[in-house]
Amino acid sequence: MTLGELGEFALIGRITAGLGASGPVVLGVGDDCAVLRLAGDLAVSTDTMVENVHFRTDWSSAEDVGRKAVAACVADAEAMGAAPIGLVVSLAAPATTPTEWADGFAAGVRSECAAAGVQLVGGDTTSAAQIVITATVLADLAGQPAVTRAGARAGQVLAVVGRLGWAAAGVAVLGRGFRSPRAVVLAHRVPEVPYGQGRVAAEAGASAMIDVSDGLLADLAHIARASGVVLDVDTGAFEIAEPQKAVAAAIGGGDPLLFQLTGGDDHALVAAFDASSVPAGWRVIGRVLAGEPDVLVDGAPWAGAATGWRHFAK
Amino acid sequence: MTLGELGEFALIGRITAGLGASGPVVLGVGDDCAVLRLAGDLAVSTDTMVENVHFRTDWSSAEDVGRKAVAACVADAEAMGAAPIGLVVSLAAPATTPTEWADGFAAGVRSECAAAGVQLVGGDTTSAAQIVITATVLADLAGQPAVTRAGARAGQVLAVVGRLGWAAAGVAVLGRGFRSPRAVVLAHRVPEVPYGQGRVAAEAGASAMIDVSDGLLADLAHIARASGVVLDVDTGAFEIAEPQKAVAAAIGGGDPLLFQLTGGDDHALVAAFDASSVPAGWRVIGRVLAGEPDVLVDGAPWAGAATGWRHFAK
Repeated sequence: MTLGELGEFALIGRITAGLGASGPVVLGVGDDCAVLRLAGDLAVSTDTMVENVHFRTDWSSAEDVGRKAVAACVADAEAMGAAPIGLVVSLAAPATTPTEWADGFAAGVRSECAAAGVQLVGGDTTSAAQIVITATVLADLAGQPAVTRAGARAGQVLAVVGRLGWAAAGVAVLGRGFRSPRAVVLAHRVPEVPYGQGRVAAEAGASAMIDVSDGLLADLAHIARASGVVLDVDTGAFEIAEPQKAVAAAIGGGDPLLFQLTGGDDHALVAAFDASSVPAGWRVIGRVLAGEPDVLVDGAPWAGAATGWRHFAK
Repeated sequence: MTLGELGEFALIGRITAGLGASGPVVLGVGDDCAVLRLAGDLAVSTDTMVENVHFRTDWSSAEDVGRKAVAACVADAEAMGAAPIGLVVSLAAPATTPTEWADGFAAGVRSECAAAGVQLVGGDTTSAAQIVITATVLADLAGQPAVTRAGARAGQVLAVVGRLGWAAAGVAVLGRGFRSPRAVVLAHRVPEVPYGQGRVAAEAGASAMIDVSDGLLADLAHIARASGVVLDVDTGAFEIAEPQKAVAAAIGGGDPLLFQLTGGDDHALVAAFDASSVPAGWRVIGRVLAGEPDVLVDGAPWAGAATGWRHFAK
């Protein structure tokens, strides 16, 4: 059966079956709006994923796509130091899409929501020429100020939690027709977001934070500009994982460090801390210097093309 | 120039130029999340519009599409009795889209946000095969309970504010290649949402409310089911506007009342009130009866195909 045969309301029924409302969710799916009760300010962010731009249905299962849509969106709330509590998801898909795909997508959304500690509280479904998914996360700052990109101070250190360059290594092999190393392929399909670490960083006194969606150097440039500082990344602090070495060797002897410096979509969190305040599990990878906003690698301008991922780019 | 030549970050810059943060907006666009300060519970809803499903670029200008995306979404917050304060918008569009279209879209989003009293606080842009827009509204219940679909009680009256069946009449003429009557064509291009009337209804004691997006009878069926009541619409209370009569006559002598009973996309608000509590400007169009959930027209089951608009339908 296809979504066209199933119909919109039946699809919504399948996606939302059994969803309740508890904790901060006063009213869940099924009315004109959901209603959430927050303890502090609301942090909100929205993220769109498009078939054949952000994912391919032959590389990623429906469940992978659902999980990734949630993970990428929730990471933005983590990056503010907020506690994500609710999510709304819009699914636009061709009427010819098999209902099994929508069921798998819904299962992925729900399992990743559970992993992230958020409740699915609403959404929209419609037909479209290709699959387009937009997720919006609602997060509670619970009386604390948001950790923006703007607070990094000279003398602090940069620290990261989560993975760098795994998803990019996965795309590199998938793009060449391979399905291994499996670890990097899985990393492209579903990022391992360090859920809960945004609050940990905020409570430890992080002065600026971002999630690495475009690539470490590209995202650090946002902090450098917003904070008016120089960020100096120490490549000696990076451990290159075996699968990344294997991929770099297999695709022509490139430097596997490139994946870590420029690869996006793993949604690690990177933040500035006083050196004495780095939380357990975070790795120091650089430092904050005074000067015209810039990102350096080992004290020097980086020679590579630190562009990160661009949409609409040729 | 096209969006592909302009690039993602330049596009975002054009869309968000000059946007600030004031009132309930603690932090506007430009970080991982926006931050809003609410006085009460959060009401949230998301709405997706797809090119050639919800709009056609030869029928609607870019500004129309931007305005409609905001209006349709904000109407859901009005229907809860909440005060809309913020909006995030995702724009997926082909790289070949002229930048003028995106500029017009952004202008429409911003002008309708101003009309609705909400601030644009974030969004996402990406490339896609067709234009897909998702808007998510953030609204403040300000210490009041939400007006759901579930509270209508036998003995109350049904009242409506805003237009019924104007957009449907517009689609009827546009679909036949005409551009007039201009009033109904304009109504299809940009709905006239009765902004502020959701709060008015809540303060007047509305017990159940919905915005008419699928068609009056279809949307009343949601209230009937959620409230466990019968809703009886009195067609004697409807005034058929001249342009609707003209369209019905032009397309073959159909009953213009059909537009009002089944036409969607005008986003009128319909609510149940005690008869003595109907706010000024609202028109009584029926009553709430005890019984198995149902919607009647003049006391009888309606013979027409009260289906409303369905996505994925053949």
